[in-house]
This record gives sequence, structure tokens and C-alpha cells, in this order.
Amino acid sequence: MSKSVASMPVTKVHNDSADGTFDALAIEEPLEIRLEHGPAESRIVQNISVTMRTPGNDTELAIGFLFTEGIIKDKEDILSANHCFIACTENKENVIQVSLREDVTPHLQNTERNFYTTSSCGVCGKGSINAIYTVTQDHQTDDNNAIHSNSLYGLPDILRQHQAVFADTGGLHASALFDAEGKLLLLREDVGRHNALDKLIGASLQNGWLPLTNKILLLSGRASFELVQKAVMAGINIIAAVGAPSSLAVQLAQEFNITLIGFLRDKRFNIYSAAHRVLITDYETAH
Amino acid sequence: MSKSVASMPVTKVHNDSADGTFDALAIEEPLEIRLEHGPAESRIVQNISVTMRTPGNDTELAIGFLFTEGIIKDKEDILSANHCFIACTENKENVIQVSLREDVTPHLQNTERNFYTTSSCGVCGKGSINAIYTVTQDHQTDDNNAIHSNSLYGLPDILRQHQAVFADTGGLHASALFDAEGKLLLLREDVGRHNALDKLIGASLQNGWLPLTNKILLLSGRASFELVQKAVMAGINIIAAVGAPSSLAVQLAQEFNITLIGFLRDKRFNIYSAAHRVLITDYETAH
Repeated sequence: MSKSVASMPVTKVHNDSADGTFDALAIEEPLEIRLEHGPAESRIVQNISVTMRTPGNDTELAIGFLFTEGIIKDKEDILSANHCFIACTENKENVIQVSLREDVTPHLQNTERNFYTTSSCGVCGKGSINAIYTVTQDHQTDDNNAIHSNSLYGLPDILRQHQAVFADTGGLHASALFDAEGKLLLLREDVGRHNALDKLIGASLQNGWLPLTNKILLLSGRASFELVQKAVMAGINIIAAVGAPSSLAVQLAQEFNITLIGFLRDKRFNIYSAAHRVLITDYETAH
Repeated sequence: MSKSVASMPVTKVHNDSADGTFDALAIEEPLEIRLEHGPAESRIVQNISVTMRTPGNDTELAIGFLFTEGIIKDKEDILSANHCFIACTENKENVIQVSLREDVTPHLQNTERNFYTTSSCGVCGKGSINAIYTVTQDHQTDDNNAIHSNSLYGLPDILRQHQAVFADTGGLHASALFDAEGKLLLLREDVGRHNALDKLIGASLQNGWLPLTNKILLLSGRASFELVQKAVMAGINIIAAVGAPSSLAVQLAQEFNITLIGFLRDKRFNIYSAAHRVLITDYETAH
């Protein structure tokens, strides 16, 4: 059994019967992300965040989080990223330390982005979108990439076929990366949908794939503002979600010229922004 | 149209056809929660949190958040809770200020609970559970309350029938409160499932219903550690989720003697902890 899944006792009830058995559950544990940085003579270690996540791909999660929050800019910033083993009765791998090169200054003010927007208008959706601009100044969208509707229809089935932990537990969100022909490149799962996407982007950063200009991001659930924001940071131009988008997710996608697709299921989908990147296959052929 | 829903242009694609129309989306906007406290001669205002939420029931959300985070203990702590109208081009109601009585000291150290656990063993699931103990010292569970399985089966249908914004948008989480006979008492929706529960608990606090010892909490999705933690704070003894629980949600429920039910659908459910509060109706009758 993977370290993402725990077997726990359960009473299964159906109509008038009750049976004691075991059930596979998605593991949820905290991960503390620490950052070591500064010149050799005065290195410091800071606690950056604690997130409730499913163990597995922790290094990707930590690196992806630091990148999508704008704290680091490049994989070359990173010297090492390792678990810290702290004296603990359960000896869990729940602390990870990312060490930066001596000449790299992390953009830690960006961690306050979620708490205090930089816009002069106070806290509103517009302020939140403006705040995203401050950490994505060099973001460029590419209008040359596109996807055929027929390629999109099949993506959720491919996602589900490869969602190993979900199949066991029914309890995980997933983020998946596809190429423009609909070929699966990478899939990550987590109890937190923001973590699944951070793992995916962290792995992509490690692989040297960023920006993900000509890729398609598939989200297993709904598309929130936070998920679109992370996609912006990774240079993704096409986001498809199996569930509904929120209003602010759509507004952010519109501002950044990102194609946002929702309700992708049963040979249907809705396009909420930048529809020009979606080619309606038969329509194109017939006209 | 309610202030929880926005109408936005959309291209609906099905097979080879594409039509431009409008779609109702769940609104997601930031809400900043501010706390005013201290003696009359030196009142201070602090920013406590910014959460991405669906507008509506903001006062309940703010009060519920302050209560479930352990920052306030009682509705009597609160003098007032109102929106602040800040100069903004969009003039959104995205800041709410809660003012405490002069003699009330907010437990602000509790806001760091999610970031640094108080346990000496560092960050692990056990540490997180221990940290919950520190803010729920007087929590008591009641083993006299129970629910019949036949009452449970119908709850998701009742929830869905009353989920007004979900029906419009397909995009919202819900938390609902039922009595032991399965009668719906209260329902709240939000793009964030933690917000839906904070709204529900905030409203319950305002109504003078706490602790919710003899009520049933129904969650429209999965049961995470954070949701069980909030239920612990409100004195809830029975939690039922339509989706899967996480491992740590189960461990926390077990530690606090809370009945945790998952996968409640199609006349089935799983009981992960404190099964003694669930009466298998026909089984009880037949034996």
C-alpha cells in the first residue's frame, strides 16, 4: 500500500445490514515548508507555510509552492530540498527544507499577497487580480497554441484511469498535464487541490518544462481563483476543469488571456474565456 | 439574481456545435476579517484573515471563523459586526469588522495554531490533534444522542433540494444542520467548504444554539481534518459526509469520540468512528 493511503477499520451500512471491515483512506498530514537562505556567514532558516497534504511528492510540493507563490523564480535558485527528520513518536516525514543558493534573495513579501492586496482600492476581486499582476510581471500568453474539441472530450477519462489513489479511496483531487494532442504527461493527486497543482508545477519546474505554454492543465474538480493564479505563474494558457469555475477564476483567466473551460464531461464543455484556442473539430472540418 | 451568483458569457460546446450564451457562476470574492478590541482608551483594529468566499452571510462567516479558530469564546464577547465600506471602484462589501466588548481579550495566539503546532514532537498528525486539544479544553461529547440509519439515508436529498445556489451554478460546497429526526434546521453554501461550515457555526452561535450536541452535521463533499476540527469547536457529535473522509479527519474524530460517517449515498454509508451513535433501524427492530 502506498504512503498516500491508510487502511482503517470501518462499519459499512447498507439498508438493514452492518458489517465491520477495513477501508482505504487518503492520508492527510501536515507538511511544514522551511526555507534556508542568505550568505554563508549568516544563513537563516524560516518557516514559510504548513499545509495539510497527502504524503508523496513532497519535494515537488514544496518547490511548486515556493514557485507559484512567487518566492523563488527558477529551479537554479535551489541548492537542495530534503525532508528533515525531527524527533517524533510517529517519525513522520512532515518537514521539508528547501535551501537556496547564497546569491538568491527569496521574494518573501509575496507570501503576504494572500493576506493584504497591493491594490489601493482595498480588498476586492479587482484588488486580488491586481495583486497577481505584481508577481507575474513577465507573464506572456501565446495565441499560437490551440486544442481540438475532440481532443478535450477524452481527457477526464484518461485522468480517472490514471488516478491510482482516488481509485482506492474516492478521496483525492488531481491535476494533470496534457500536450496539445491530449497525451497525458504528468498527474499528481492530493487531498488539497492547490497541493495537487503545486506538486504538478513543482515537478514541471524540476523537469525544466516551464513555462507550460503549449500544455493543457486538467483539474479534477472546480476551478477557483487560486488554481488559475497558480496556472498563470506556470505559464499555462489552457485550463480545463471537470467542475464549475468561480466568477473570480473566470475574471482572472480573462485578464491574462487564458482559455478557461469548465464542466468538461459527456462530450460537452463550456468555454469561459479566450475561446479562440479551442477548435470545434467537426465544425472546422465542415466549414 | 442573488449576490452569490454572477451571470457571465460562455460558449457552450457539445459534439460539433458551439453556442454563445450566458451561464450562472458562483461568485468568489475575498473577505477580510478585522477585529476591534481593547479598552476604550486604546482600542486597536487588527486584520485577522482574508478568505476567498461567496458573498452572503458574511457576518456569520466572520463570527464563525473567530469562534472555530478559538479567538472568541461566546457571542456575548461581540459588541457589533458590520461591513466596512472602503473607497473602491467596485464598491464591494469585502471587509467586515467585528468589535469585541472592552473587557474581552481575544485569544489571538490561537491563530497560529495552523502554522506552528504546540506539540513538542514537531509537525505531525499527532501534533495537529494535540494542538486542537489546546483550544477545546472544555469539549464534552454526549453519548446519549443517536440517529437511526433510516433517518440518515434521506439527508443528502434534502440537502440538494435546498441548495439554491448549487442548483444555479453547480459550483458550491454546503454544510447543513439537522436534528436527530433528520429535519433540516440550517444550510449554508460557499465556494470554500470551510467557509460554508464557518457560516453555519456562526449562525448557530448567533442563534444561541451552541453547543450543537444533539444535532447532525452534513457535509456536501469530503471530510477533512479542518472540517472535523471546526465541528469539534461547535460541540457537534455526529458528522456525515457525502464524500470520503481523510485519514486525519478519522483520527481526530476518534480522539474526540465524534461519530464520523462517509460516503452517505444510495442507502449506504460507512462509519469510521464512534459507531455506537448510529442505530441500524431494521436491525434494531428485528433483534
